[in-house]
Amino acid sequence: MKAKVSKVPGPKSKRILEELKKKNGGWCMPLPFVHSGEGKGCYFKDIDGNLFLDFASQIATNPLGYNHPDMVRTVRDHAKRFPVKYAGQDFTVPEHIEMIDELLKISPGNAAFLINSGAEAVENALKSAMHARPGGVYGVSFEMAFHGRTLGALSCTNSKLVHKTRFWSFPMHRLPFDEAAPVVLDEIIRREGGAENCSFVIVEPVQGEGGYHIAPKLMMRGIRKITRERGIPLIVDEVQSGLGRTGKWWAHEHFGITPDLMTAGKALQVGATIGQRKWFPKEPSSISSTWGGGSTIDLAMGIQTIRTIKKEKLLARCKRMGKYLVKQLVGLCGEHPEAYGARGLGLMCAFDMPTKESRDHLVEHLMHNGLVTLGAGHNSIRLIPPYIVGKEEIDEAVAIIKKSLADIHKERARKGPSFAEHAI
Amino acid sequence: MKAKVSKVPGPKSKRILEELKKKNGGWCMPLPFVHSGEGKGCYFKDIDGNLFLDFASQIATNPLGYNHPDMVRTVRDHAKRFPVKYAGQDFTVPEHIEMIDELLKISPGNAAFLINSGAEAVENALKSAMHARPGGVYGVSFEMAFHGRTLGALSCTNSKLVHKTRFWSFPMHRLPFDEAAPVVLDEIIRREGGAENCSFVIVEPVQGEGGYHIAPKLMMRGIRKITRERGIPLIVDEVQSGLGRTGKWWAHEHFGITPDLMTAGKALQVGATIGQRKWFPKEPSSISSTWGGGSTIDLAMGIQTIRTIKKEKLLARCKRMGKYLVKQLVGLCGEHPEAYGARGLGLMCAFDMPTKESRDHLVEHLMHNGLVTLGAGHNSIRLIPPYIVGKEEIDEAVAIIKKSLADIHKERARKGPSFAEHAI
Repeated sequence: MKAKVSKVPGPKSKRILEELKKKNGGWCMPLPFVHSGEGKGCYFKDIDGNLFLDFASQIATNPLGYNHPDMVRTVRDHAKRFPVKYAGQDFTVPEHIEMIDELLKISPGNAAFLINSGAEAVENALKSAMHARPGGVYGVSFEMAFHGRTLGALSCTNSKLVHKTRFWSFPMHRLPFDEAAPVVLDEIIRREGGAENCSFVIVEPVQGEGGYHIAPKLMMRGIRKITRERGIPLIVDEVQSGLGRTGKWWAHEHFGITPDLMTAGKALQVGATIGQRKWFPKEPSSISSTWGGGSTIDLAMGIQTIRTIKKEKLLARCKRMGKYLVKQLVGLCGEHPEAYGARGLGLMCAFDMPTKESRDHLVEHLMHNGLVTLGAGHNSIRLIPPYIVGKEEIDEAVAIIKKSLADIHKERARKGPSFAEHAI
Repeated sequence: MKAKVSKVPGPKSKRILEELKKKNGGWCMPLPFVHSGEGKGCYFKDIDGNLFLDFASQIATNPLGYNHPDMVRTVRDHAKRFPVKYAGQDFTVPEHIEMIDELLKISPGNAAFLINSGAEAVENALKSAMHARPGGVYGVSFEMAFHGRTLGALSCTNSKLVHKTRFWSFPMHRLPFDEAAPVVLDEIIRREGGAENCSFVIVEPVQGEGGYHIAPKLMMRGIRKITRERGIPLIVDEVQSGLGRTGKWWAHEHFGITPDLMTAGKALQVGATIGQRKWFPKEPSSISSTWGGGSTIDLAMGIQTIRTIKKEKLLARCKRMGKYLVKQLVGLCGEHPEAYGARGLGLMCAFDMPTKESRDHLVEHLMHNGLVTLGAGHNSIRLIPPYIVGKEEIDEAVAIIKKSLADIHKERARKGPSFAEHAI
């Protein structure tokens, strides 16, 4: 297969997007196409017939690509099961315990709490930590962190100003996302009158929305050491980095550390807070949710995703293909000096452009040339294909990036440099 | 059909529930059966073959009952559409605008934001209000209110201590859920230095989790008058009371008021924040979510629910059957003086028992006699059958309640009164 794009947005997509712009209270400028439901592997069609190569994977939510036969079968089989959507914490279905069992086989911990989204998984990790430490009066998160947008999770989020502006926040300290973090954490604990006042430290092993920064090993180990010694629960947020994307089930495994509480979402198809039983509240109903785990189809898809990753040995593939992709990106950055900073852990890859504007411009060019990507942080482009990606699709993606950079180069030579590209 | 229950929990359910109790980090003592997926109308089977009459409707999440042909067809048709779960705010599918359009036809407002749960719908209503009023430093909610468990929504929740204990809260004032509320609100605004310091007032027209209390008309109108005059956004939470359950699309319609922002969830199969465009943030990405609206099957089920309610004239049926149910409950309370306070708005009905213990005891008895219900508040029992319920099922439910009350009476005569039943 090869991407083939004529006009984006096509007329059908344009009509729907114009309506959505008027009526969606949370309008956020999506890429201008509307999915058709047709597709195969790493490729999907929009409703105007454009065929795209997908290196965004529904923001890491679609790990097995389009219409994977296991997923098609799973959804078809579970489509007969009613209610599909049910009150999962109060009225149970067999899929609920099946999902928890599958999760606990691959996770550090002996208990899990299923919930509706990654943000809600973070909320419940924070709540569990608060419950375990009634004296805590502040939390600690990192510069450029993204943990979700509900008000608890948002208090820990620092990636973009627009996510936080005018919204209330709980008391929170920020650590630099580098090797100085442990020293700064120590200093905060001292200044705030002792470890018992600190409710939790929350960290992404690879920052997602904030720019695909891979944590330094010394930082992760230093933070783990201090939090363990001082009895502060360490929450590792794996909503974007988890479930195999980095070549291990969870990104924190690359650092040789074990979290106290962990969050999952996106690729899992449901949200989950995972950890040792002792970190969860003991009182029944202290944490709960009507729909927590309450969709048989979401659960079935998540369970099958884990099984298919095992069956098709996709962890090894993520690692192998990630290495290949980063190698190509390094080469590409050598040829095109405006692209730089090629990096990746498994299939969680990225590179940078000089400015936000030049990054956004490239994302648009890539789309018109058939490659769907997403920005991250200030000036990064994330490359997160489905786990089933092969060398052929990676080569095609890299060729599209090269072509787009060359197009932009020509365009600029014609027009002269823009103001934005000289901005500091 | 007739409920037929042998042993609860049956051996298969027991095994799963024991596992869940060990491994579910959010264990909350569900009724001890596991759903099988089999069922019809108001009846469902557990995996041990017990047949229950459902007057809990998955906590109002299952308005059309089990295996409604429209829902079976809808899910089957959409089970072919991939990805089923997708990044709804960034990558759009046609169902997204269809759902918003269906919602706006029946709601006060010209914009809606789709999200993952009722709690997240509340979070986004709060965030929108905060964004619209940058000077606001506190919110106002009601005694016994329940608005969800994420930390923003939880700050507005006051129904049970266990939901809040040890969790952080934003600054919030509480109003009594009675006709004094407007006067108290006026006083709070005065004391806090003027209306511009108040970010929002949030209210349920019929309190759900807090005890199925129906707001007095004077209270709702008084609160609406003050908030309108003082420019404070009024958020009406319709997560449990909305989408037809009370005999109108939204419970607030019974009070002749219009909210500024409204929330929906449960029966809708997705979460939604609804209102006038001007109340939502103007900046793109100020509010968003990876999965907001991001399941084609959930969206399709929600859209079809609205259409089926219209097609089968279920609003009128909820009103009619609700009246019939309350009449039976009033009669029942006359015969059994320990049951009292029969009330309802449409099919959102309840009655009270003297204590929490006697209420919980009755819920258990009802279940063993084949009727599934849920507690609410301190000592209430909610009766919320699917909208398709008929007189026959209501008669069966009332007969089971009478039998259970008689059983308990006999049991007590044998054992003597318990301490709990004499507690104040």
